[in-house]
Amino acid sequence: MKKATRRQTKAHNDRLILKTIYDKGEISRADIARLTGLTRTTVSDAVAAWMGNGLVAEVGVGRSARGKPPILLSVVDDARHLIGIDLADNVFRGAVVDLRGGIRCRHSLPVDERDGDAALAVVYELVGELVAAASSSILGIGIGAPGLMDPRRGVVRNAVNLDWHDLPLGYLLEERYQLPVYIANDCQVAALAECTFGRGRDVSNLIVIQVGRGVGAGIVLNRSLYCGDGCGAGEIGHVKFVDPGDRCRCGHRGCLETLVSTRAIVRRARAIALDDPGSALHRFAVEPGAIDLDAVFGAFQAGDEQVRSAIADVARVLGRAVAGLVCTLNVECVILAGRVTRFGQEWVELIRDEVGRAALAALADETQIQITELDADIVVLGAAALILSHELGLV
Amino acid sequence: MKKATRRQTKAHNDRLILKTIYDKGEISRADIARLTGLTRTTVSDAVAAWMGNGLVAEVGVGRSARGKPPILLSVVDDARHLIGIDLADNVFRGAVVDLRGGIRCRHSLPVDERDGDAALAVVYELVGELVAAASSSILGIGIGAPGLMDPRRGVVRNAVNLDWHDLPLGYLLEERYQLPVYIANDCQVAALAECTFGRGRDVSNLIVIQVGRGVGAGIVLNRSLYCGDGCGAGEIGHVKFVDPGDRCRCGHRGCLETLVSTRAIVRRARAIALDDPGSALHRFAVEPGAIDLDAVFGAFQAGDEQVRSAIADVARVLGRAVAGLVCTLNVECVILAGRVTRFGQEWVELIRDEVGRAALAALADETQIQITELDADIVVLGAAALILSHELGLV
Repeated sequence: MKKATRRQTKAHNDRLILKTIYDKGEISRADIARLTGLTRTTVSDAVAAWMGNGLVAEVGVGRSARGKPPILLSVVDDARHLIGIDLADNVFRGAVVDLRGGIRCRHSLPVDERDGDAALAVVYELVGELVAAASSSILGIGIGAPGLMDPRRGVVRNAVNLDWHDLPLGYLLEERYQLPVYIANDCQVAALAECTFGRGRDVSNLIVIQVGRGVGAGIVLNRSLYCGDGCGAGEIGHVKFVDPGDRCRCGHRGCLETLVSTRAIVRRARAIALDDPGSALHRFAVEPGAIDLDAVFGAFQAGDEQVRSAIADVARVLGRAVAGLVCTLNVECVILAGRVTRFGQEWVELIRDEVGRAALAALADETQIQITELDADIVVLGAAALILSHELGLV
Repeated sequence: MKKATRRQTKAHNDRLILKTIYDKGEISRADIARLTGLTRTTVSDAVAAWMGNGLVAEVGVGRSARGKPPILLSVVDDARHLIGIDLADNVFRGAVVDLRGGIRCRHSLPVDERDGDAALAVVYELVGELVAAASSSILGIGIGAPGLMDPRRGVVRNAVNLDWHDLPLGYLLEERYQLPVYIANDCQVAALAECTFGRGRDVSNLIVIQVGRGVGAGIVLNRSLYCGDGCGAGEIGHVKFVDPGDRCRCGHRGCLETLVSTRAIVRRARAIALDDPGSALHRFAVEPGAIDLDAVFGAFQAGDEQVRSAIADVARVLGRAVAGLVCTLNVECVILAGRVTRFGQEWVELIRDEVGRAALAALADETQIQITELDADIVVLGAAALILSHELGLV
């Protein structure tokens, strides 16, 4: 609890007015005053300031029961641009994003297993390209990165795949581009993307579960990203699920990630190719290493029984993990993201069934479980939302 | 985000000043102004109002480097009394509690398997006794009850053991005693007790895990109780842990509760008594139903190998569940409560070991896992803290 001063009150009310315009799409000054309970003068002054710096514009005339029809205000989507960066995979992806999550341009660069300073050079190149491509004043740079982050200091504490340890990425980028930089874990920003631009726009509490090479969750509670004391909240991929289980890259065995990630699925498919002459994948028996997620998905779609049974197993294990989250946090909305979501509605149904079996019925019944609509842009959009949240209070 | 008006600002600042005095124990007006950043006038006016209604008093004179020594202020512990009620077990417990969590008097009534209206009559009798026993003006009644609560409406949605379904307990008690009434789940208020009066006074995020007849967690994030969309957060006792497992009272099989609750422990001990002539419990073989938690604890303390091995199993399963919470929420503090904590430090060590094996190392290392110091009063104190939080903003 901190003191509320007049200056804070004004800043709070200014942001509240901008957020009201943003959330409503188009709205008159009178309706803002009605909705917020603020005086017409306070609203008019704030609107004048936001119009002065180009974030808000008068966009037309509304209807009125009697008297002069009101002038409608709207946030100017392209008034500022956001640079969103996704470092989660072996291709670094980025985009110039407008204030509504519209993607103005995309760019990506292969990492090709580079790490350390070489990987950092790829980030510089990617950000440089995007900064040059932005056609409007840039509000900031947002980064979603794999591993343990410290968002308060802008430091990558530990990103194993990139061999980054205590890397002050925020500071380095701020120095280089003279722009505000915000960093968070990729799964955590994915959750922010959902609550800003996705299915979670109207909910208070949600969890996004990303299942790709890694497995992790992002948790939004009371419409704020919850990161935990060490910023490690959502590291569900490294909870032990089976004993002893396969070795995980975290050093333990039997973690959830070893059972449901894309690598786990491909590994199972390779075993099927070798062991099961009845499977369509058996044609890979001479070179099982050639099996990738595309090949597994092809066999799944073709109705290969062994592959379908393996995918059902994976869905059940993931469902068990989701049941744990549902009972722990009782959020109304669980959103699935990452490359494994390509197995589609059937796979989601299997997860839902397992949640129904493995979680308290009253809670399972109240929880929606769905695939993201933001597709592969989810982390880039979440990184952009991180900027919107910090710079304008719009999340 | 709601508008900040002057009246809200004043109410906010008044509570901030009271909380500052409460948290600091003894403090001068000048130091309050310094700490909060509020003006001396604002502080003096608020202090005068709190002194006027007896909540704050001048308690002495502080030291000063030069000039007049400052007058110290303190919250008057007995200025108001809180009625805290714990309905979690087969004995309803209650206490008159002062503003610091000091217990002024205790009272408890056996439920003797009564439920429905008969159980409600026991609540009335208990509250009536405590209201009569309070020696100061009563700030409110707080209730910690098992099952699904709706704290916003003061309704018990579902308490299976008491056969209460959609019972408007808050309304009934408010009508009867003309006092504010606050209701929450017993495990949830236990977490509030820890962050107000217990080990969690100085931490932002904590989880309390109660292991007794039932198993559940209470979650405090950013020093606020997190209840979830349906108020069911923390229902970890009903996550499926084994397949198929024993029948649970929730209707499913293999829930955590069927493995680690006092009933699960007693059930295992009874099996040992029947099957294992080497165990000290074998003397109960003719009447295994006579084994209760005391008998199990006696055998554990006496070093009975079978019993010790069963308790170690239970600790490992619970440790696995704690690992899930640690990776999901990355809280700095996990506190164990409930009757199973009598197995003590050895049992906690086994849980810690399992968390080390089953959670991401960086997160496990940063998490303290401890037994509560509030003992069997934890729910009563949490119910009292619920009143403090709502009525005075002191949590």
